[in-house]
Amino acid sequence: MARADAKAAKGTRDFLPLDMKRREHVAGIIRDTYESYGFASLQTPALERLDTLLGKYGEEGDQLLFKILFRGQPLVDGVRRAAEHLSQPGAIVRGRSGETIPGAETILSDLGLRYDLTVPLARVFAAHQSELPPVFKCYQIQPVWRADTPGRGRFREFYQCDADIVGSTSLLSEAEVLSAGCACMDRLGFDRFAIRLNHRGLLRAVIEKAGVTSDKELDAVVALDKLGKIGACGVRQELEQRGIGPGWQDRLLELLSPEVGLEALERQVADSEQGSAALQAIREVLALCEVTPAAGRLRFSPTLARGMSYYTGCIFELEEQGLESSLGGGGRYDDLIGMFMGKRVPACGFSLGLERILTVMSEREMFPSSLQRIDAVVAAVKQSEGRSALQLCHLLRSAGLRVELVPGAFKPGKLRKSADERQIPAAVWLEPGAGSTASLWLREDGSLQPALDFERIVEILRGLPQ
Amino acid sequence: MARADAKAAKGTRDFLPLDMKRREHVAGIIRDTYESYGFASLQTPALERLDTLLGKYGEEGDQLLFKILFRGQPLVDGVRRAAEHLSQPGAIVRGRSGETIPGAETILSDLGLRYDLTVPLARVFAAHQSELPPVFKCYQIQPVWRADTPGRGRFREFYQCDADIVGSTSLLSEAEVLSAGCACMDRLGFDRFAIRLNHRGLLRAVIEKAGVTSDKELDAVVALDKLGKIGACGVRQELEQRGIGPGWQDRLLELLSPEVGLEALERQVADSEQGSAALQAIREVLALCEVTPAAGRLRFSPTLARGMSYYTGCIFELEEQGLESSLGGGGRYDDLIGMFMGKRVPACGFSLGLERILTVMSEREMFPSSLQRIDAVVAAVKQSEGRSALQLCHLLRSAGLRVELVPGAFKPGKLRKSADERQIPAAVWLEPGAGSTASLWLREDGSLQPALDFERIVEILRGLPQ
Repeated sequence: MARADAKAAKGTRDFLPLDMKRREHVAGIIRDTYESYGFASLQTPALERLDTLLGKYGEEGDQLLFKILFRGQPLVDGVRRAAEHLSQPGAIVRGRSGETIPGAETILSDLGLRYDLTVPLARVFAAHQSELPPVFKCYQIQPVWRADTPGRGRFREFYQCDADIVGSTSLLSEAEVLSAGCACMDRLGFDRFAIRLNHRGLLRAVIEKAGVTSDKELDAVVALDKLGKIGACGVRQELEQRGIGPGWQDRLLELLSPEVGLEALERQVADSEQGSAALQAIREVLALCEVTPAAGRLRFSPTLARGMSYYTGCIFELEEQGLESSLGGGGRYDDLIGMFMGKRVPACGFSLGLERILTVMSEREMFPSSLQRIDAVVAAVKQSEGRSALQLCHLLRSAGLRVELVPGAFKPGKLRKSADERQIPAAVWLEPGAGSTASLWLREDGSLQPALDFERIVEILRGLPQ
Repeated sequence: MARADAKAAKGTRDFLPLDMKRREHVAGIIRDTYESYGFASLQTPALERLDTLLGKYGEEGDQLLFKILFRGQPLVDGVRRAAEHLSQPGAIVRGRSGETIPGAETILSDLGLRYDLTVPLARVFAAHQSELPPVFKCYQIQPVWRADTPGRGRFREFYQCDADIVGSTSLLSEAEVLSAGCACMDRLGFDRFAIRLNHRGLLRAVIEKAGVTSDKELDAVVALDKLGKIGACGVRQELEQRGIGPGWQDRLLELLSPEVGLEALERQVADSEQGSAALQAIREVLALCEVTPAAGRLRFSPTLARGMSYYTGCIFELEEQGLESSLGGGGRYDDLIGMFMGKRVPACGFSLGLERILTVMSEREMFPSSLQRIDAVVAAVKQSEGRSALQLCHLLRSAGLRVELVPGAFKPGKLRKSADERQIPAAVWLEPGAGSTASLWLREDGSLQPALDFERIVEILRGLPQ
């Protein structure tokens, strides 16, 4: 027989039932926690218009968008225009994951896959403001897609769990999202996590103090964001490439040495209004969080920068001891919604990365010993008893039990063995001619009771520990 | 301020909190029901390789796939090849939703979005067989994407809820998936639904009996599938276009008149082995379902054809009185998994369409009167009480209550009004200088109690009906 390839697409995964139990366990705890904080559930489409997505994530993000190919006449027109561009001398061809035809996104596509959950939320708030409360608290647990090079723990399709508060400048928002994030981590069983805290206003003040011109500010932020990963030397190279010379490099790295404390920085930026305001905000968030599950978890981290270009205020990153990469992060983004509304709407959010949390919990065996949820397997020994088997299953299910009927004829020994291996508490089988009775095997004590009435079986199974 | 368009992409929707409550209510009932039948949860990636998807849904389906644009060098090469094709005289340009560049899928793309949940399941079973039980029962509640023209109740991104049994030829599979589907409908509150039942083997026998050659068999099926929508005249036209002439048209429509019963058809196809076997299978499924929630819901429907090309045995379609289009459907597809495995693996499934079910339930007001799940709103009257408000919220949440903290300062009157409008049972606010006390308003009786201890508030709120 001819055979098609059964592999999943590169960088994507199939989630089999055991994976799903674990994913649902973690997502369920996060959902319950977010709901206990009054965040309401929100979902947005996987497909977004490209003009919604482009220009929000920085150049690198734009290149990593999955774009949907035009169909029909627009495809014909697009191919003609793209070919024309290529035929010109000096047509640019960029490296690995980059676009090779400048503007290909609008020549051959006008739709892309969701890249994060924040930009779609901003669009939703702008589109539906009249239907939403002025202060809108919501959470999203959804996949996002990035055309990144897949690697260990890095996928092209992965879930984020975001909680956001839109419509308030109050620092209670920061305290609430941080507190909710920490409560999730607590309930999942993590105990060695911390949240690094910084403020974009403070970074801006420091960059200004170092003498870097304001047009290079975002370049400096993007480079500094990599300090933890590539070290000071790497950051110097990155700054150099972005046209920020050695003198400025020295100043920046001196001002932002990891050892610098709140007080020392306060003296340095004392003459900067935004720097002082930022430090004041950091102090206030630290104080507010003392009475929440975030107590003792926050630490001021002057080198934290965060890559996304849309942050404007406090920024956070969730770290677990012994792990290289963060498990989540977030911050305040007061200008993003304005891009869709024509007026400024403040907002603040926190995002947990489901995939990394799952990876760590698997490695550390942090899942409950059994996520199994089948109460019994039922089978007919001969095909003739199929109808009786269906009848018994219907009775058991009506009593609230989860019952798997094995289709076809099945031998009792094989059924018991399968139930045992799968840690299912009971196996029930119908012998030929047994009428409304069946045999019951219980895994708990290995007992076997033949020819029990259906009603008696329901009774016994309902009495087992759930 | 410049303003980007905030519209969702054509044919897609944002689900605000009220929509989400309804979606989660329905999906939750379907999930619980499927799990009570022992189906295990499965999820597959949104992105599939195009060679997985192409050639499984018929020509029309292939054209409606959303395809992902290549990046990097493959994009450059693809554009050059596509342009070359277009420059040839007589390059084909097809209509509205069709591809205009033949083979564009493999010239400019090698990934597509999931079109249904059955083909990915077949791929998963082939890829992971060694990790799965020989008889694999699973359910999927996931979105699929089709580049169809959006219309009333028809979207480009929509959810399907599938339950499948892979690995058994037993008709107990048909009975189980039909029974699970009917149990879902019962629990959702539908009471005027029926499931039409037919068999592809019977259709094949009838088509053969009518004298249509076997190479036109699928054409005849696709045309007959539209009988309910476009009537006998429409089907004649469709058959004509597909090269099946008037003589055969007469025979087909005579053999398959809606009034024909099981016995009459049995006489007609008595000399066909596959026709007789199909009728026997239909009779058996009808008998098996008598002891399940599908009892009284099934009716034999000789004109039912179903569009998908992968069905091989029994086929079903779920109809609700007073609705034009079906709410779900399914059938047996014994050859699909073999396309990925090189050996035949039988399978059977049933799919509920979440969007149509939601539309009907909204129109008929079938949702519980309140899906609200917030227990209290809390606010500080002045900013200075923010920390105390956080503290109270932490206490309430630790007691298992769902509490929304309104960030920023908030007036008591406004808070009460908002709680009242949103049907939230309690509003709590912290007056300046009130220390560890707050004021409590209860929606139930409109009572207002000032300066209550935090502990007392926890006590009262825990005592309210949940």
